[in-house]
Amino acid sequence: MSTWSQAGPRSVSEHAAAVAALLPPTGTEPVALAAASGRVLAEDLTAGVALPPFDNSAMDGYAVRAADLAGASAESPVELPVAADIPAGRTDVPALAPGTVARIMTGAPVPEGADAIVPVEQTDAGPGGGLDRVRIHEAPQPGAFVRRAGEDAASGAVVLRAGTVLAAPQIGLAAAVGRAELPVRRRPHVLVLSTGSELVAPGGTLAPGQIYESNGTMLAVAVREAGATAEQLSFVPDDVERFRAVLAEKVGDGVDLVLTSGGVSAGAYEVVKDAMTGHGVEFGKVAMQPGGPQGCGRLELGGTEVATVTLPGNPVSSQVSFEVFVRPALRAAAGHPAPARPVVTARLSGTLSSPAGRRQFRRGLLDAAAGTVSEVGSTGSHLIAALARADCLIDLPADTTSVADGEQVAVWLLDAP
Amino acid sequence: MSTWSQAGPRSVSEHAAAVAALLPPTGTEPVALAAASGRVLAEDLTAGVALPPFDNSAMDGYAVRAADLAGASAESPVELPVAADIPAGRTDVPALAPGTVARIMTGAPVPEGADAIVPVEQTDAGPGGGLDRVRIHEAPQPGAFVRRAGEDAASGAVVLRAGTVLAAPQIGLAAAVGRAELPVRRRPHVLVLSTGSELVAPGGTLAPGQIYESNGTMLAVAVREAGATAEQLSFVPDDVERFRAVLAEKVGDGVDLVLTSGGVSAGAYEVVKDAMTGHGVEFGKVAMQPGGPQGCGRLELGGTEVATVTLPGNPVSSQVSFEVFVRPALRAAAGHPAPARPVVTARLSGTLSSPAGRRQFRRGLLDAAAGTVSEVGSTGSHLIAALARADCLIDLPADTTSVADGEQVAVWLLDAP
Repeated sequence: MSTWSQAGPRSVSEHAAAVAALLPPTGTEPVALAAASGRVLAEDLTAGVALPPFDNSAMDGYAVRAADLAGASAESPVELPVAADIPAGRTDVPALAPGTVARIMTGAPVPEGADAIVPVEQTDAGPGGGLDRVRIHEAPQPGAFVRRAGEDAASGAVVLRAGTVLAAPQIGLAAAVGRAELPVRRRPHVLVLSTGSELVAPGGTLAPGQIYESNGTMLAVAVREAGATAEQLSFVPDDVERFRAVLAEKVGDGVDLVLTSGGVSAGAYEVVKDAMTGHGVEFGKVAMQPGGPQGCGRLELGGTEVATVTLPGNPVSSQVSFEVFVRPALRAAAGHPAPARPVVTARLSGTLSSPAGRRQFRRGLLDAAAGTVSEVGSTGSHLIAALARADCLIDLPADTTSVADGEQVAVWLLDAP
Repeated sequence: MSTWSQAGPRSVSEHAAAVAALLPPTGTEPVALAAASGRVLAEDLTAGVALPPFDNSAMDGYAVRAADLAGASAESPVELPVAADIPAGRTDVPALAPGTVARIMTGAPVPEGADAIVPVEQTDAGPGGGLDRVRIHEAPQPGAFVRRAGEDAASGAVVLRAGTVLAAPQIGLAAAVGRAELPVRRRPHVLVLSTGSELVAPGGTLAPGQIYESNGTMLAVAVREAGATAEQLSFVPDDVERFRAVLAEKVGDGVDLVLTSGGVSAGAYEVVKDAMTGHGVEFGKVAMQPGGPQGCGRLELGGTEVATVTLPGNPVSSQVSFEVFVRPALRAAAGHPAPARPVVTARLSGTLSSPAGRRQFRRGLLDAAAGTVSEVGSTGSHLIAALARADCLIDLPADTTSVADGEQVAVWLLDAP
């Protein structure tokens, strides 16, 4: 059933499309406002109330009928009786009779009959607290300092579109229209496994020939940073039967993706490949570097199947192919309007050579102010310390064999959302 | 004790400095790698092991002595006996005797005596699994395809500097050097309160004159987005005694900042101002718009005191002054190397006028590709729906009174980290 390996290497975009096709759009779930940060709104949000809900005062001062103050000025102020006091939140506001004013606070409802607000600074603030009489020394325009009901949003208007990524201002707006929770796109759930008999959990003791497990930790964190959820499984030894058993036990309705690293190249002990070949997952080469050996498909496990992406085991290959294939697919599945990393162009500091026929992703450090990028480390896919100093990937097309100092290159920003 | 109101308005940078001075650097706490994303590393991380920890193979193939294969070519291949099989993780690797080779997998330890790796593609892969004899048809250079111990990082080397913001690659590196947890800067803890008798919790029913509470929700989310932790208190009515009692009950050693919104302007009912004046918090004006009325200080509450920042109550004023004063101070306290939002310049689409003597922050929408920015909504500080459509703040200096179409303006990016 596997035709990929016979057909020869896939391009990066071909494999990206194959991975994306494994992850359909997620459904919708409600989430409380306090937990909605970073989530994607699943439905248009309509305002249940107008914003503002009622005409209210933009200033602390006096609600007036502008006609009563037609000639008011500093030279000939108009004194009027204060008929009411309206703090914010007053729910029983009386109508304003002609020839009277009401003291009013910012945000408080403008009484019926009033058509303007005079800021307290344009009055004498009245004797004895300003609740008896007040002298006003400017003539207001009708409508002055009145915030009209609905001038920010009409009741029933769409105030946020489905697909909006929610952050503090959008969540504040949802609260302002009375919503305690919002419908958001469910986050894909990813089961992360790394394989290799050489792996020891961080904190343990290494025997000669062993290394600390880092891919599983790194990928689980990267999955969460992509807005998905992750369960990291303790790495399983390079044993096919045990590997399938661990997977079968864990995979249920709640898992959207099984993500493995290691065990997919041409070696004699390739547990992932051995456990999945003939069970719905195809393996082959992608014309890229790092990250040539890849696999994906719908893994059949007894009566069930689950979307599966198998990344190579070298740490840099693993992380770079996560960035190129998995992260955008997860974000697209969760409805993110911009699933890919932002790409900018920068001038290369130094020179680079690259193999013909393979798209290369070099680790880079961007100097945004200078508009330049330089390589960090070199092409070795084991150079994880260098990877950790990089803030971008330099994307060299498959037909590029060399880049001169100062030439423009495309750069993927890794520290942007 | 208050001299601010007598001295006249502070500049934005004066008030920012006053707020920042309230938040000293936080201490250090350990965090498990899986929870370290977004945290700031508190100490230099030194590698407990070299990376790689031992010489290992970069390819699946054969470990050889290069001298044994001096003349090998496609025309005259050299056949040698396979003395050992070295999968990754083998901990009892025998030394390689002259005149023999060892089958070896990627990442497996290079045996003592071997000085090069021949990829399997440069051999006949041997008969019967390649574990008996193998024919090699290229002469390797000494060192070929050997990853040297320590070539990525020496044991004891500093691989991450204190102050690094941790994300997947840095966390993967920490795992690779054997760390199960990392020392990170503690997140400031913020108690968020919004005040106003007019406020109703989202989900409730509004009486005439009431509005839904949104500032507390918005600020608590914004605090968490800034990398701090937040507890949002149910808003308290505009009652001074009750307000101080709620605060006194909640404030303990664990609270780094009390953050309020509302109750600080010139109105007759200003609960925050009334509850804090004379108790260590100063109130006054900042020469900015929105967000003129501000306050900050160390609030004395019985025997204790707590850093306090009081934001104005209009939603846009509250959110913008959080961005300008509180967010950078919280991030700086937590050790973030770049506490402020990134600032770019863009050409204004349209025209703007701005009052002399006040620094204005207008809500904007950036078209990064075109290099242009346009205003969203208008100056009204109640326009929360417009705020939620903005992705940046247009920063107009205090001495700017108008900006022409196409003129350059400074823009704070709100959707960047």
